Amino acid sequence: MRRTIEWIDGHVDVVDQTALPQQRRVALHTVNEVVDAIHRLVVRGAPALGAMGALGVALAAARSADQGYDPEAVRTDARRIAAARPTAAHLKWAVQQVLPAVAHGPAAVLDAAAALVEADVRACATLSRLGAALLRSYVGDRPMVLHTHCNAGALACVEWGTALGIVRALHADSLISMVVVGETRPLLQGSRITAFELAQLGVPHQIMIDAAGPGLIASGQVDAVIVGADRIAANYDVVNKVGTYPLALAAARAGIPFVVAAPTATLDPDTPTGAEVTIEYRDPDEVLLVGGWRMAPAESTAFNPAFDVTPADLVTAIVTESRVIEPSRVTESAGGVQPVTVPAMRLVGAY
Amino acid sequence: MRRTIEWIDGHVDVVDQTALPQQRRVALHTVNEVVDAIHRLVVRGAPALGAMGALGVALAAARSADQGYDPEAVRTDARRIAAARPTAAHLKWAVQQVLPAVAHGPAAVLDAAAALVEADVRACATLSRLGAALLRSYVGDRPMVLHTHCNAGALACVEWGTALGIVRALHADSLISMVVVGETRPLLQGSRITAFELAQLGVPHQIMIDAAGPGLIASGQVDAVIVGADRIAANYDVVNKVGTYPLALAAARAGIPFVVAAPTATLDPDTPTGAEVTIEYRDPDEVLLVGGWRMAPAESTAFNPAFDVTPADLVTAIVTESRVIEPSRVTESAGGVQPVTVPAMRLVGAY
Repeated sequence: MRRTIEWIDGHVDVVDQTALPQQRRVALHTVNEVVDAIHRLVVRGAPALGAMGALGVALAAARSADQGYDPEAVRTDARRIAAARPTAAHLKWAVQQVLPAVAHGPAAVLDAAAALVEADVRACATLSRLGAALLRSYVGDRPMVLHTHCNAGALACVEWGTALGIVRALHADSLISMVVVGETRPLLQGSRITAFELAQLGVPHQIMIDAAGPGLIASGQVDAVIVGADRIAANYDVVNKVGTYPLALAAARAGIPFVVAAPTATLDPDTPTGAEVTIEYRDPDEVLLVGGWRMAPAESTAFNPAFDVTPADLVTAIVTESRVIEPSRVTESAGGVQPVTVPAMRLVGAY
Repeated sequence: MRRTIEWIDGHVDVVDQTALPQQRRVALHTVNEVVDAIHRLVVRGAPALGAMGALGVALAAARSADQGYDPEAVRTDARRIAAARPTAAHLKWAVQQVLPAVAHGPAAVLDAAAALVEADVRACATLSRLGAALLRSYVGDRPMVLHTHCNAGALACVEWGTALGIVRALHADSLISMVVVGETRPLLQGSRITAFELAQLGVPHQIMIDAAGPGLIASGQVDAVIVGADRIAANYDVVNKVGTYPLALAAARAGIPFVVAAPTATLDPDTPTGAEVTIEYRDPDEVLLVGGWRMAPAESTAFNPAFDVTPADLVTAIVTESRVIEPSRVTESAGGVQPVTVPAMRLVGAY
């Protein structure tokens, strides 16, 4: 399988995730095209956004070089790219990683971006092995039913997924009996992208509407919930695709593990708790129009937050490429570090 | 506004709820048409299904009278109508209520059905007043934000809703600042039907995807959750549209009331707990096809339960037309009656 994001002949070539399950790639030649691709979710998923951010700055440098290289203009472009999705910690982080190279010219920026992408690919592969071992320790060495939401697979990354990377590693050892996939309204990343990846890998899976997940978990048929993350606060509150929090509530009540798989760069020490995260609100029409048809009356409006916050006390483990963090044990041993949970969703006048 | 279900000139005339927000009525002249209308959700909602069941038996009697009245054939038709949606307690109950009249001919059956419908209309109106008073006691005499799911409004009933009946009663006293409506995938009864009713009533509302509800509740901006019920077990476990349980989990964690509005006939003393309820599984294509387009790869399947079970300990109050039941207080005072929660969802080979 080709990588999700590639640098080819001076431009960035990406899988168009809005077209999946139809397979289509698009070529991005300008910074405007990069920002638009991030905003429209042509590219999505924390690690993929990191690669896109780094290669986006390389593209800005290459375009600037076309007309006499201007480092200050490249830095301005970099800030626009970093801000294209406000909740994505990895995007901002990756842009910052390549910024120092801007002073040294376009070749240096491209080298820095390529190194970052390679490091990310290695990190996801390591994380997947670590996560698979963790789930075996929680569930036992038997085929398991895992529940996931949105897409934290190869298409959310460059070559190898985070949450779905763990699934892939377990599947290689015949330890997956079923993956339950939340369809992930409004944009259906579960039905369109995760199911596509699982079908390609030959992993047995069932799609469900998002609201059915907690009831299935309550029925005792799910062994663990495994999701990615867009940002993790310093107290281990997890910001991920809206609909993650109800699965965490259900997992806690059912007594099954709730595992978050994310590269270290997703951990944001500058954000004390989930309450301080700026939640991205998207166009109400993503909710009101279904398959191109408006389903609600003309008078109705919609509120469309892209993320929710899962408080740290509901998170069994966070798996990165270098370690496993078990937030409830951390807060226990620290004696009194309490997860704070007043997510910053605002109901009225949000969008 | 005309009633949702009417008996006109020897047939049953109903609002086609699959067409909403487009307004269309359909005439049902045969028992086959009645069973099909129930199965396809042309008619839905516990009280409306009760009216449909009773008038369906009246229709069976009228059709039988067309060709020499045969009470045994009418009873066979009645059993088919009662079984059209296995989870709906009210449908089965209403059919049983009119069965004794079958021995006395078609006019007697129609009288019994009409009496049941009138009693139901009165019950919903009384329930709405009782529920409004309860919410004022919980939240206080100030404009409140209520979160609802699916549709328990006038269109789920004959003339006056249950959960939305309470909203309507509060709105009449200027005590609603906002109703948050879960879109209710897969068939979007929230966007199509509840939003339509609220728009008609002039009640401010916002539609959200179902998975966003718990995050909004966690943010502290919702005063109470209010839903209907399709069946309530003897221990007060509540069976309602799938997606109700996650709202109950979120309400419990946020410390806000979770209120269920349902006519007494929804209480099923023959079902000890939610674990014994047969959950209806519907066609996977309701999930896989969105606006007529297949969103998932050809290899993927879906699991489509229509209901979930909310255990009694998460239910703050059940409001009927005659009383308010507070399940956690009931079980406390009874000393040891524990809600049992192993809902009967089966993941594999369900549909």
